[in-house]
Amino acid sequence: MRHLASLVLSLLLVTAAQAQPAADRVEAHRADAERLIEAALADSSAWTRLAELADTFGPRLSGTQALEQALDWILDEMRSDGLENVHAEPVMVPHWVRGKEVATLIEPRSKNLALLGLGGSVATPADGITAEVLVVSSFEELAARADEAVGKIVLYDVQWEGYGRTVRYRGRGAVEAARAGAVASLIASVGSGTLYTPHTGGMGYEDGVPQIPHAAITIEDSRMLHRMQDRGQRIVVRLDMEAHFLPDSPSRNVIAEVVGSEFPDEVVVLGGHSDSWDVGQGAMDDGGGCVAAWEAVRLIQQLGLRPKRTVRVALWTNEENGLRGGTAYRDAHADALEDHLLAIESDGGVFRPSGMGFTGSAKALEILQAIGTLLEPIGAGTMTDGGGGADIGPIMREGVPGASPNVDGTRYFDYHHTNADTMDKLDPHDVALNVAMMAVVAYTVANWDERLPR
Amino acid sequence: MRHLASLVLSLLLVTAAQAQPAADRVEAHRADAERLIEAALADSSAWTRLAELADTFGPRLSGTQALEQALDWILDEMRSDGLENVHAEPVMVPHWVRGKEVATLIEPRSKNLALLGLGGSVATPADGITAEVLVVSSFEELAARADEAVGKIVLYDVQWEGYGRTVRYRGRGAVEAARAGAVASLIASVGSGTLYTPHTGGMGYEDGVPQIPHAAITIEDSRMLHRMQDRGQRIVVRLDMEAHFLPDSPSRNVIAEVVGSEFPDEVVVLGGHSDSWDVGQGAMDDGGGCVAAWEAVRLIQQLGLRPKRTVRVALWTNEENGLRGGTAYRDAHADALEDHLLAIESDGGVFRPSGMGFTGSAKALEILQAIGTLLEPIGAGTMTDGGGGADIGPIMREGVPGASPNVDGTRYFDYHHTNADTMDKLDPHDVALNVAMMAVVAYTVANWDERLPR
Repeated sequence: MRHLASLVLSLLLVTAAQAQPAADRVEAHRADAERLIEAALADSSAWTRLAELADTFGPRLSGTQALEQALDWILDEMRSDGLENVHAEPVMVPHWVRGKEVATLIEPRSKNLALLGLGGSVATPADGITAEVLVVSSFEELAARADEAVGKIVLYDVQWEGYGRTVRYRGRGAVEAARAGAVASLIASVGSGTLYTPHTGGMGYEDGVPQIPHAAITIEDSRMLHRMQDRGQRIVVRLDMEAHFLPDSPSRNVIAEVVGSEFPDEVVVLGGHSDSWDVGQGAMDDGGGCVAAWEAVRLIQQLGLRPKRTVRVALWTNEENGLRGGTAYRDAHADALEDHLLAIESDGGVFRPSGMGFTGSAKALEILQAIGTLLEPIGAGTMTDGGGGADIGPIMREGVPGASPNVDGTRYFDYHHTNADTMDKLDPHDVALNVAMMAVVAYTVANWDERLPR
Repeated sequence: MRHLASLVLSLLLVTAAQAQPAADRVEAHRADAERLIEAALADSSAWTRLAELADTFGPRLSGTQALEQALDWILDEMRSDGLENVHAEPVMVPHWVRGKEVATLIEPRSKNLALLGLGGSVATPADGITAEVLVVSSFEELAARADEAVGKIVLYDVQWEGYGRTVRYRGRGAVEAARAGAVASLIASVGSGTLYTPHTGGMGYEDGVPQIPHAAITIEDSRMLHRMQDRGQRIVVRLDMEAHFLPDSPSRNVIAEVVGSEFPDEVVVLGGHSDSWDVGQGAMDDGGGCVAAWEAVRLIQQLGLRPKRTVRVALWTNEENGLRGGTAYRDAHADALEDHLLAIESDGGVFRPSGMGFTGSAKALEILQAIGTLLEPIGAGTMTDGGGGADIGPIMREGVPGASPNVDGTRYFDYHHTNADTMDKLDPHDVALNVAMMAVVAYTVANWDERLPR
């Protein structure tokens, strides 16, 4: 009877609480939020930890020792932090190797062209490809000039029109060029600014279409080759690329928790992806997302704040060229997804945050917006409709609500997938603000008086 | 008697004119100025000509074929333009060759460090230099830690504090490091922004101090090595550089004119330097200055505007690593410097101009400020006190008044001496505005009713 009475009481309380507007209910969480914010902003520990990761291991492409050594170090550090259920979940990942790669302008004059092969590209033959270049501005122009592309290297000298539009040439450029009979394809780097900066990134082939090498040159060289063509000059480029796949390789998703006091099986998961492209340091893509989530959970633990539900940091592997980590997480936790209340992924750079974007029910957004008021003192409280991330995509498609930080991404695509994705671009206070925001949102949702409604 | 009468009349007229304020006298020149501005802004011909120069010949380091071929092309084009007295004046220039160069981080982890040897540096021994690195933030810190520098590679990880302050480490870094017993020296690139961008530039040695290799790495890598040192890590770098001098090599200053109708020996000279460092395209440093001056004179000629005095475009060679062109110009024209009324050098990038800086007498500045009113319609009319340039320095020290465009140089030092000094950074309209400004100032001074007073 005591149990029944307790259950009834508890139900009544919850019902009463639910009758209150979220804006009132959030006040009970303000003190904890203030402690988290204060702790996050007290020092530069998140930036310092991220710098140690980035400097010690460098870039962390799937299949590399650097990634696995970084994961070993993270697991050790998480245990030292005193986090709970620290463990790794196995994931087999693709292992693409760039190898040596050189592009040389032969005509109308000799010049090295800075190059980054695109992830997944095939190699050139061992003696390279030397061919005339056809420069086009778009797929439409290529279609119109398909006759001219046969036997040539097609260069897509595309203007930056935002990532979504411009990245299509990285993704589908080789397919469309090969369809037109080209022997290789190049793109102007997909970036918003350039200091002679090649950008790598993923690309794809299509069944039934020949696989030709596909690489990025700098916007500077791309524009120059276009001008040369406009002057009627014959352009010849020699391309040498050793890119190839090795067999799939073992990697891991890394997990650590602060276990919930009342509903340990109900989870708020937050994280980023541990892998990066093989350039720069993967500091913002996505070391920063990983460390911000990890530090958020560490602060909850360190302050002795034990939420009703479990807060879990997940560092997914292989976002960049396979999404195997996010997919494996969905599969390994298939039975538990119903109890995943919220998934938060930070993968847009740990720049100055303004709040989060959220994909889920209107009722849940209302609660998140109430929680946002706790973040107003640090300017990170604006919760907008629409959010998510590549790694949490698979579980979001199973119904898990998803969120992602909204940050000042003005310069993100200057750095994205380049050697300039490095620590010096990240401000310690901005990183700390991300930690504070993720900690407050994750903790408060986990500690809310009801499950975040779907 | 007729001559005497004419002379007296002419003196009276000049005296009468001088009695008028410059602001009134300038009105007689407005119509011509408007024609020059209209012609300069009518199309993108200056940008297009600069692009052809930059794309066809690439960077133009002193001693290279590229520079001399570019000068041949410029001379041909100037003759085609119908300019007068088109000729070259011989100058022997230094011939520094970069050769192959590689820097590799060995400890605490293996990493290629993007490198640009600094102009004038010696090579490493053929088997390279492998040494521990001492990172310092300043000459002062090096002095305090001189004992630690013996046998090491000194890295100056200096913050950007404007070109003047930061460039000291490029110029004197090798001398100070060698004095402390270092075997080589590196600097964080001298630049205001970075996308993993090494910057080259000149450096010096000092008699009696050992000559050690001196090179720039990226700000990204420099900061990383500094953090590694701060963590107590041992840093080892291997440096391989083949840099060396060949014997001095023949080059040329290029000259073309619109000869003055009344005082052909009185000259307004305007120009830039034809050489560049061996990276990028030397588009803004200083192809842009050369072409803007050249196009300004071409427009004067093309519009049939013959000023009272000669307008001369001079493209000086070897500004970057010797200043031999500017010095040779002074010597070749020593007897004519008294009749050089004004020297204008554009070497700060042909970005949006606001006017010019001027070094000369107050009376002359007053006239230039009056001429500036002709440029107000294009926002380029503000004439400020203090201007000049490296190439016109030698003749300014002989008393020739000097001027230089004031431009929006916000991003100039992002590009300066890098592979990003390319055409895509220059806006055709901004280039045309520079042409208009230089044409109006040069032409109006040349056509003024009196010599520009010293």
